[in-house]
Amino acid sequence: MSILVVGSVAFDSIETPHGVVDHCLGGAATHFALAASYFTKVRVIAVVGEDFTPEHEAVFTRRGIDTQGIERAKGLSFHWTGSYMGNLDEAKTLGTDLNVFETFEPKIPAAYADSEYLFLANIDPVLQGRVRSQMPNVRMVCGDTMNYWIADHGANLAKVLRELDVLLINDGEARMLAGERNLVLASEKVLAMGPKALVVKHGEYGATAFFSKHSFNGSGATSRPFRAPALPLSEVVDPTGAGDSFAGGFYGYLASQPELTPEVFRTAMFYGGVMGSFAVERFGTERLQGVTRQEIDERFKLFLEISHLDHTRA
Amino acid sequence: MSILVVGSVAFDSIETPHGVVDHCLGGAATHFALAASYFTKVRVIAVVGEDFTPEHEAVFTRRGIDTQGIERAKGLSFHWTGSYMGNLDEAKTLGTDLNVFETFEPKIPAAYADSEYLFLANIDPVLQGRVRSQMPNVRMVCGDTMNYWIADHGANLAKVLRELDVLLINDGEARMLAGERNLVLASEKVLAMGPKALVVKHGEYGATAFFSKHSFNGSGATSRPFRAPALPLSEVVDPTGAGDSFAGGFYGYLASQPELTPEVFRTAMFYGGVMGSFAVERFGTERLQGVTRQEIDERFKLFLEISHLDHTRA
Repeated sequence: MSILVVGSVAFDSIETPHGVVDHCLGGAATHFALAASYFTKVRVIAVVGEDFTPEHEAVFTRRGIDTQGIERAKGLSFHWTGSYMGNLDEAKTLGTDLNVFETFEPKIPAAYADSEYLFLANIDPVLQGRVRSQMPNVRMVCGDTMNYWIADHGANLAKVLRELDVLLINDGEARMLAGERNLVLASEKVLAMGPKALVVKHGEYGATAFFSKHSFNGSGATSRPFRAPALPLSEVVDPTGAGDSFAGGFYGYLASQPELTPEVFRTAMFYGGVMGSFAVERFGTERLQGVTRQEIDERFKLFLEISHLDHTRA
Repeated sequence: MSILVVGSVAFDSIETPHGVVDHCLGGAATHFALAASYFTKVRVIAVVGEDFTPEHEAVFTRRGIDTQGIERAKGLSFHWTGSYMGNLDEAKTLGTDLNVFETFEPKIPAAYADSEYLFLANIDPVLQGRVRSQMPNVRMVCGDTMNYWIADHGANLAKVLRELDVLLINDGEARMLAGERNLVLASEKVLAMGPKALVVKHGEYGATAFFSKHSFNGSGATSRPFRAPALPLSEVVDPTGAGDSFAGGFYGYLASQPELTPEVFRTAMFYGGVMGSFAVERFGTERLQGVTRQEIDERFKLFLEISHLDHTRA
């Protein structure tokens, strides 16, 4: 089934201990779409500038991603500059040039109207809300946000949260959103804001899902939390997009399944970790463009091996 | 089979957001012994002062722990004062009164000589080494250390590390010992120092075991890492001794099994998490004194539920 994702398609200039790249293709929607494309059909809503070339578009189309909804505008694409020189766990933003994103008005192509799964990647909650309201009949809505929107756009974000089935954020964001340091208490506060499930990403330590006491989308998912591992990696070349790739693997797998059961949700968290682990192996989206389904399946088995008492029975 | 543990039996004065306790029974060997006592026989080597009463001893003997090796000396027992007011993840040490520990010369009672498992809890590596050399024929040696010994007693610690089958430390200690931030690279450096396995405790995020490429004690354990979860807790009353309790659950389970297989090692990591999760529910050793085997078994099942795709087949 199809996922519609709205978010940034952008260029990133990144510095990590492994090197420097200038204006490589990036953006939350790009990482998400590439990761999800290994599981299901993906359609993208975004805006790019005149610097977005047919070669850039081919990165999407080669993976079968529908680019009809990528609007071309005069000017330059969104450009992010960041450094991980001090700490691979957290990017230091050196520059954010919104460019064409500043006046973006998301428009949904008629051909996207039957999308069953909606992903609101990390952009202005006002834009997230506009897309959500144009897709009233989707089966599921999943979304992301970041510290900037939590701190200064709380009212707009609150409206989006009320409409979410699953919110995927990291530890710091969950604690900030809840104003609570304890992760279990923070998750209860965040779930009270609307989402039926909260997936908290812990970077190199994996991710934890917390579930609302309300039945989750009719799935009968339990209210117990669930923890999925991350793969211990000896080399992280570029952490940019790891969270979006996690979301893409998670939601892509979920959307590929006929029914949302607790086991499907758990398995989706493992696939999230799998795609996140690939994303950081190379700069930008390089690894996500070239990974094979066989490599994904092998790494999924590796995730079972490193986390299950007897993985042969998992 | 019997575990011999050498380490501190002490009094702790602790301040956490949940309250204050003065001179409650604590110490690494105490937490370790109580946690391990639910799985196997435990014998303690330590020194206490005149403030250690029959009531304190009864905490051990009620759990069947052998206290013959707890030496009585003139003066006061080791006393630690710490605060978790700023951060539940890390204790701020306000005072360390070594007292009778300052001149401790560990002596091993004849009745302990047939102990098959040795645990060197976090004390001066010189003392760890002296106990190790008096127990040349044990089946397995497992140990702990801390930043203080890593920073200022490196040469003595290096000798102990060469003798270890398993080293259990936390993230910060592993990174400090290796002088390397990446956990996989740090684990390789630590394993090169001697231990055949390294268990790194991540606090609320669980623990990861890394294995040396050399066969692990003839067990055939794989060289893949293994990650065990921690239970997400809405309330941590007192984190003191969580790591020692993890070690007790881990090593206690391991020593209770006839053979060390990879699955036994993995399961032991889960029992480590289980005992750690109990330890922090109350101040001092209160919870570890009163937990029941049934509660332990139920929590183990809960750990499977929160980490396995299909826990009914685990």
